[in-house]
Amino acid sequence: MDIKIEKLRGFRDFLPEDMKIRNYVREVIEKKFKLYGFDEILTPTVEYTNIFTLKSGEEITESMFAFKDKGSRDVCLKPEQTASTARFFIENFKNFAFPLKFYYFCPVFRYDEPQHARYREFWHLGVELIGSSTPETDAEVISLAYDGLKSLNLNFVLELSNIKVIKGVLNSTNLSIEDKKKILHYIDKHNDEGVNEILKRTDRGEILNKVLSFKGNKKNLSDLKNLLNDCGEATEGIDELENVLNFVELYGVNYVINFNTVRGLDYYTSTVFEIHANDMQICGGGRYDNLIGLFSEGKDKDKDVQNKNVPAVGFAYGFDRVIEALKMQNLSPEFENRKILITFVSEEFKDYCVKVVKELRERNITADLDIMNRKVRKAMEYANNKYQYVIIVGKKEVEENKVTLRDMESGEQKFLRIEEIMAE
Amino acid sequence: MDIKIEKLRGFRDFLPEDMKIRNYVREVIEKKFKLYGFDEILTPTVEYTNIFTLKSGEEITESMFAFKDKGSRDVCLKPEQTASTARFFIENFKNFAFPLKFYYFCPVFRYDEPQHARYREFWHLGVELIGSSTPETDAEVISLAYDGLKSLNLNFVLELSNIKVIKGVLNSTNLSIEDKKKILHYIDKHNDEGVNEILKRTDRGEILNKVLSFKGNKKNLSDLKNLLNDCGEATEGIDELENVLNFVELYGVNYVINFNTVRGLDYYTSTVFEIHANDMQICGGGRYDNLIGLFSEGKDKDKDVQNKNVPAVGFAYGFDRVIEALKMQNLSPEFENRKILITFVSEEFKDYCVKVVKELRERNITADLDIMNRKVRKAMEYANNKYQYVIIVGKKEVEENKVTLRDMESGEQKFLRIEEIMAE
Repeated sequence: MDIKIEKLRGFRDFLPEDMKIRNYVREVIEKKFKLYGFDEILTPTVEYTNIFTLKSGEEITESMFAFKDKGSRDVCLKPEQTASTARFFIENFKNFAFPLKFYYFCPVFRYDEPQHARYREFWHLGVELIGSSTPETDAEVISLAYDGLKSLNLNFVLELSNIKVIKGVLNSTNLSIEDKKKILHYIDKHNDEGVNEILKRTDRGEILNKVLSFKGNKKNLSDLKNLLNDCGEATEGIDELENVLNFVELYGVNYVINFNTVRGLDYYTSTVFEIHANDMQICGGGRYDNLIGLFSEGKDKDKDVQNKNVPAVGFAYGFDRVIEALKMQNLSPEFENRKILITFVSEEFKDYCVKVVKELRERNITADLDIMNRKVRKAMEYANNKYQYVIIVGKKEVEENKVTLRDMESGEQKFLRIEEIMAE
Repeated sequence: MDIKIEKLRGFRDFLPEDMKIRNYVREVIEKKFKLYGFDEILTPTVEYTNIFTLKSGEEITESMFAFKDKGSRDVCLKPEQTASTARFFIENFKNFAFPLKFYYFCPVFRYDEPQHARYREFWHLGVELIGSSTPETDAEVISLAYDGLKSLNLNFVLELSNIKVIKGVLNSTNLSIEDKKKILHYIDKHNDEGVNEILKRTDRGEILNKVLSFKGNKKNLSDLKNLLNDCGEATEGIDELENVLNFVELYGVNYVINFNTVRGLDYYTSTVFEIHANDMQICGGGRYDNLIGLFSEGKDKDKDVQNKNVPAVGFAYGFDRVIEALKMQNLSPEFENRKILITFVSEEFKDYCVKVVKELRERNITADLDIMNRKVRKAMEYANNKYQYVIIVGKKEVEENKVTLRDMESGEQKFLRIEEIMAE
């Protein structure tokens, strides 16, 4: 058998320098999540496949990391968190008070062809707010998506819509169900040619075009409302959008309305939004008011389905793309060199060095013992540009119960008691 | 098709209260890892199966979460991190200086029969120290395993050994290779009956028994060394153990020597250790000096194999079992109630409330807006025993640009400007 000692295609290793940036970004964003009152949850990496295929449509099915486990169950590595959270809610919450505010950070998986900023394993960092359908709820979630990225100083554009607008307009046309599905898919994939092709086939191409090319914010919506006054669902969508935007503006969020924001996943019911940076979509979210109800039906055949029609709204950052955008905008933080390396003139002083490293760590100072048995000169070479300080231990240091502390940048050396290192 | 809206057997959902404990434990231990100079890395959740089967022995093969991906590759959800780290090292490190000190936190997977404290997805939190073979290296890693748990105030026992001792004694007997393998397996599984069965078959049952029933620490080793002076590998093992224990004692680690500590994984070469608490093994580790070399051979057929014989030592906590032991010892931390809920007397004041919640969050105060449109009385009921404070907004508050802050424990109410909330 061919032995493969390599990572799989589309999967990545993260080196210490990668993890430092990732942990920094995660901490900054999670801090915002917590300020908004969201609590972390976690669901399994592996789930029954039908949790994702039941509602999320074919697109996700095709590209899922699905397989049969040893018990012949149809399982998959979760491709996104929202459906898993809906399942989580139904299984775990019986007696409780709404709203529930959850956040999560987890790997998700797709069996796509790997390409720039598309991997087979990537991370979603996001929130779900369950149980509330007021417009300020949508606004809070949108504001959080916005604030999280603002706290990284990232440049980005937040685009939002209400899916009912485009659906309402499409339903007022003579397009076939097939064509309606197709055009939504083309819109989502920014396939202008495909969109135009279908536009030609409809009696209301002009209105559709006006909606799709609409640019503006809340105050520009009234003109559009007049234009769409014969498409019930579309005007309902615009009304909802106006109510949400009222609060979005109070939250100080910069946004643009873009009715091309339709989201690929079939479970969104009204508000939808995306955030773009450096030609990448780095965040997607919206309201999904039917998913939990659908899952409840699937689960409890009896009539007493407590969880029918539980409204919910959420978003996920494509965490890896946020990192990528930060790098492209030269916003990655710089990290300090390692703190202290402890080296010895002769092996007989090693015991003393262990005592020193132990004491430093007990005082919350990060320190490395030179465990490679290097000579001082070699250890200094190794420490150069890597450590802020080197401690050198020889006969005099041991006899006087002190250490020599060398500042690797200035070259300055001091003869100190361990307690005195703190002050440095 | 039968629709399954439930989690898979052996997998778990983690609620906010679970995640708070898990995050607390992770932070405490990772702080120690960093103090010891270890940096976080991450490798893929999915790997080629042969990375784990090449050396880790049959036990792990049988219980792996292995499957064929859509490209017909033999892949698996990683059952442990060490082999993946060895692969990671070979693929990513060409020009660098030893030692490398890595830590990781990741889910690992087994297709075992689920039972108490055994899950199909569980978490490993551990370290690998690559490139150094000095005894103080082993001691540093053992000390870290010990310190991490001490900082949680956990009660536990650290047992250590050098695998060469038991192997040396076994090699000095007339036992077949088969029997030697079996007895190591029985020892690892605490199967006394199996051990005794094989002991009967050997000419040196008495000596083996003495080794297996040895209890003590470094100072008790000299007697054993005399007893084993005709088993070359065993005395080598005892010498190594003594050298490591010299530093382990300097680090202030409490330990017992237990030659029954043989570890189930085939890649350990000398030092091995386990930590037990509440009848669970919560940590396992040791030195694996041949694994990276073996992987390098598998990878580079040419003679210039840079990474041959790269020594390494590490350990992993069974993170879920650490959590379980903490709970059993009543050491789980308590968490505060939520901070502030903002509620309004009438919907017309909602805009003002959004302003308040926004300002509080900007001042790093965690706050929730009552997004459920509850009446104040209902909101207060909801907040009872859940929030520390409730802010009530009515006409007077809006007119005077203030808020009413109610302390939910004392019932005391204050009429304050937002800036004044900080002082509370």
